[in-house]
Amino acid sequence: MSVASCLPPPHIGVKTQHLVPKDSTYPSKIGIPTTDVPARKLPVVHSKPVPRGTASFEAMRAALLDAFDSKVLRDYHLPRELIENPPTDVSGIPASCGILSKAEIEITENHDAVGLVAALAKQQYTAVAVTTAFCKRAIIAHQLTCCLTSWFMDEAIEQAKALDDYMAKNGKPIGPLHGLPISIKEHIAIRGTCSSHGYFGGIAMDDTDSEMVAILRSQGAVFYCKTNQPQSIMHLESDSHWGRTLNPFNIHLSSGGSTGGEAALIAMKGSVIGVGTDIGGSIRGPSAFCGIYGFKPTSNILPMRGFSRGTFPGELNVLASTGPMGRSLRDMDLFMRSILSARPHLANPELIPHPWGSIEPPLGRRLKIGIIDNDGFIMPQPPVKRALSWAKGLLSDPKYEDLVELRDFKVFGAAEAWDKIRLMYWPDGGQLTTDAIISTGEPVHTLTKWICQTAEPLGMQTAADVSLMRDERDRFRHAFAKSWTEQDVDIVIGPAFVGPASAHDTAFYWTYTSLYNLVDYPGAVVPTPIKAELGEEYDPSYVPLSDACRHVKELWETGNFEGAPINLQIVARRYHDNELFRALNVLKDILNLA
Amino acid sequence: MSVASCLPPPHIGVKTQHLVPKDSTYPSKIGIPTTDVPARKLPVVHSKPVPRGTASFEAMRAALLDAFDSKVLRDYHLPRELIENPPTDVSGIPASCGILSKAEIEITENHDAVGLVAALAKQQYTAVAVTTAFCKRAIIAHQLTCCLTSWFMDEAIEQAKALDDYMAKNGKPIGPLHGLPISIKEHIAIRGTCSSHGYFGGIAMDDTDSEMVAILRSQGAVFYCKTNQPQSIMHLESDSHWGRTLNPFNIHLSSGGSTGGEAALIAMKGSVIGVGTDIGGSIRGPSAFCGIYGFKPTSNILPMRGFSRGTFPGELNVLASTGPMGRSLRDMDLFMRSILSARPHLANPELIPHPWGSIEPPLGRRLKIGIIDNDGFIMPQPPVKRALSWAKGLLSDPKYEDLVELRDFKVFGAAEAWDKIRLMYWPDGGQLTTDAIISTGEPVHTLTKWICQTAEPLGMQTAADVSLMRDERDRFRHAFAKSWTEQDVDIVIGPAFVGPASAHDTAFYWTYTSLYNLVDYPGAVVPTPIKAELGEEYDPSYVPLSDACRHVKELWETGNFEGAPINLQIVARRYHDNELFRALNVLKDILNLA
Repeated sequence: MSVASCLPPPHIGVKTQHLVPKDSTYPSKIGIPTTDVPARKLPVVHSKPVPRGTASFEAMRAALLDAFDSKVLRDYHLPRELIENPPTDVSGIPASCGILSKAEIEITENHDAVGLVAALAKQQYTAVAVTTAFCKRAIIAHQLTCCLTSWFMDEAIEQAKALDDYMAKNGKPIGPLHGLPISIKEHIAIRGTCSSHGYFGGIAMDDTDSEMVAILRSQGAVFYCKTNQPQSIMHLESDSHWGRTLNPFNIHLSSGGSTGGEAALIAMKGSVIGVGTDIGGSIRGPSAFCGIYGFKPTSNILPMRGFSRGTFPGELNVLASTGPMGRSLRDMDLFMRSILSARPHLANPELIPHPWGSIEPPLGRRLKIGIIDNDGFIMPQPPVKRALSWAKGLLSDPKYEDLVELRDFKVFGAAEAWDKIRLMYWPDGGQLTTDAIISTGEPVHTLTKWICQTAEPLGMQTAADVSLMRDERDRFRHAFAKSWTEQDVDIVIGPAFVGPASAHDTAFYWTYTSLYNLVDYPGAVVPTPIKAELGEEYDPSYVPLSDACRHVKELWETGNFEGAPINLQIVARRYHDNELFRALNVLKDILNLA
Repeated sequence: MSVASCLPPPHIGVKTQHLVPKDSTYPSKIGIPTTDVPARKLPVVHSKPVPRGTASFEAMRAALLDAFDSKVLRDYHLPRELIENPPTDVSGIPASCGILSKAEIEITENHDAVGLVAALAKQQYTAVAVTTAFCKRAIIAHQLTCCLTSWFMDEAIEQAKALDDYMAKNGKPIGPLHGLPISIKEHIAIRGTCSSHGYFGGIAMDDTDSEMVAILRSQGAVFYCKTNQPQSIMHLESDSHWGRTLNPFNIHLSSGGSTGGEAALIAMKGSVIGVGTDIGGSIRGPSAFCGIYGFKPTSNILPMRGFSRGTFPGELNVLASTGPMGRSLRDMDLFMRSILSARPHLANPELIPHPWGSIEPPLGRRLKIGIIDNDGFIMPQPPVKRALSWAKGLLSDPKYEDLVELRDFKVFGAAEAWDKIRLMYWPDGGQLTTDAIISTGEPVHTLTKWICQTAEPLGMQTAADVSLMRDERDRFRHAFAKSWTEQDVDIVIGPAFVGPASAHDTAFYWTYTSLYNLVDYPGAVVPTPIKAELGEEYDPSYVPLSDACRHVKELWETGNFEGAPINLQIVARRYHDNELFRALNVLKDILNLA
């Protein structure tokens, strides 16, 4: 189906409509610069608008936004005054704005997914009540962070009603996820909704569920929204034709990307669990930026069929992976267990059979943990170093000496990996993506240019070139595995990013996550109690490890990251996803994880 | 190292030497046409010589052959009279020629690998005795079938001596393969030996063992020879710059390829177990042509690092796989178990962890078997149909009704798969391979031209093209898996090839094996008691299924395949390698397998 299906009828005329409706109060006295942001029926907070395109493109975009906004009841609108003069930290607003009932606040705040599913199963809540609460909270979150791209409360309530009917009739849940609302990243197909690649030219209506969505649906999940991602889905921020997703804890910072809509929504408690994808850090980065849990499995363990239209030549070299984002370790475990219990490898032969183990069984010996101070390429910013010290302190506590064995871990080839992967993403020189973006008059965003720029001069590669590039990748993987073996660790703990959440349009260096896409190791990010503080300084002994390292220091010293959460990343060997979860279970009590 | 290292010093002058030494008796009164075959110090049987190249190429080739021949003691030469007037079936000659002692005949004939390893472990034989027997028998087999490319008895005896010393000192085997001679396909690196891609331009000396060879060596295996393969390793026959490997049971037929040297050597009992590779049928085809056991696992289960120099762009689309060829099911199981017990996935992150299960545990229910009559594209030749009837008869016997459940299986998309895979092998249009072949004046062989010919006009593909091709492949794989699921079978039994062994230069259609490379399903071939007979005719109701089908009938009717063995192929789903072996264990008694 065409993009037409994603717009409200009649949509043909949208190209000639006024960009700013005559009754608009825009430009308002809004406290942050929005001079080029057209007014919307459902205004959202803007701290830095996305670039504007041609007039015809902006007309199409306005129509798209208008179609979205028109579905939202006035009752769910936040006060315009608040949108125009938001606080820096908007995370508390959903609970305080008065739109949610006490019960809805309780439903959305007091449970993780495992708890919610249990409450639904014992009929403490109806599916309709849970769905309503999350739909309302999601649209509130959206007005504060621009985290959604679709919101379909009516259809969600219908799904929930059917589940309540099933429960009434059968006295038991329809499946392990009965009544659980799950938010989904925009590019992932849900039947009857639109998907895109973060730019207008890629919008399409999907008439079938992607494989994973179908599995989740059959297990009782309720779908109610899709979430924002960046143009090309290849930034570590989330700035698409839908706008820019803001960090709930500091709207001048990014929510991360590419699964940044999810991260913001979950941090705002507008979702209890969501689905992302990750080819360079797109689950782990935004989860870290927003202080939630996120897991990128080894590739080809979870089904991704139907996740994207067309092909992405970068996957000739580096495979994307899908995984959960949420509130607790056990939620990520629930997600993995539920999907894998459906044995998706039988229908999808791209997948490797990967029976999901319990996280409970003990390892039978001490867990060997490597801890990363820096990757030899970019020194992390001060709050990340502080989080590493915090973890090191706990893990070195003599009371855990029967459980864990800590050693310093030296990262193999981080700079080389970063050079390689930026080429490997674009064996077409980025041409296919850029052409698709500009075809509708949409401007190419800063971070789209950034990530393509090293590959762009090389243009389209040949099959022989790709073959050599994959051989290089495999050589790197072997050397990396050798270094891991020599250091004799089960897991590694290190930064999830060079710093806390980036200021908008500055998430340049993903090296702490993309390394584990290049080698295809599973990685989870987990929150720490550390938050960025004002005035934190680099160690006086700091010497730049690289130009990138110097740039990262400059970004720290010219930015204000106050209140941004810090996560850490925990990684295991390729295909050792079960082992990673067993290790996380050991770390749970030591690092006070949820 | 260069090709120079593979020639005897001084080798520089070889380019100007006479092609036919002056003391040669060539041309002889040999019964089969060899008019353009230069004489060798160690003459080998020729039923159809490979094409000749430029004078300088032929000079280099002659030097290479001369270096090989010079290593062979006169005592191991077969009578020239026999070489010049060989019987059609040469399989009985090693035992009757008088070169082997009674003990050597017993060692080489009376055991499979499991039995031999057991006999070595209990010191019934020394490693030196076993190695000597197989070295001698291998060089006899070579003179009759041209199955070898390297033969290094001296080095092998040294390895064997070291093992005997270990046993004497420690009173136990060094590993699970203590003293077992293993033959290796030529392109697989063994340190200190040469490898090639079946053409002169690709020859190189290897200074390290490939990963699998290193594992086998550490477990006590003895290496003593490398075996012939076709030019480009992409024929289902074995005609390289080393010559053409003949079928031991009918020298006017091919031994199959690309692991055809192995197949002939093992059928001649010059090896008890060997290692092959398979990207279109290269383990299964030759095993079937020569009536031995062969197993192609799912890709990325066994290590192939160091198996080939450079990259083969075809592996962007279809991955090769390595596996054992031998005398019994339990030998293939031993091979898999030994390699996988070394946990090769830790050093080689391309590999999927695949713990090897025991073949013993019962399935707990009846085994659901699909049987293929034909693939809807090419009707198998009469003896293959006869073998299928034989299997069907046994599997339908009421006495096995508690064990198996037989149903007809309809193959999905065989013609489409064949069209696709021939393009997928050559995303470079075959250019890289052809250029490398002709660079030394070597002629391009008939079957090299054949397998490249559909891709050649398309030339070098772009990364975007490859991306689309892989997407097509994945769609095919999904559809194939769906068809398999709908037919609800555990395994499928069908032809291993369109007929018995092909007459030389006529193995055109590999569709019965290459299909399972395209979908990457594990497949084993097993011998049947059926052999091709003179005068067998197509069923009177035969209607051609395709032009290829018509051609295959013509090949049958104009050929003479008498005495050629018929194997069947047994296939399971992708990554169901353990399940396949459990199924084979069920079939063992029913089909009287070794």
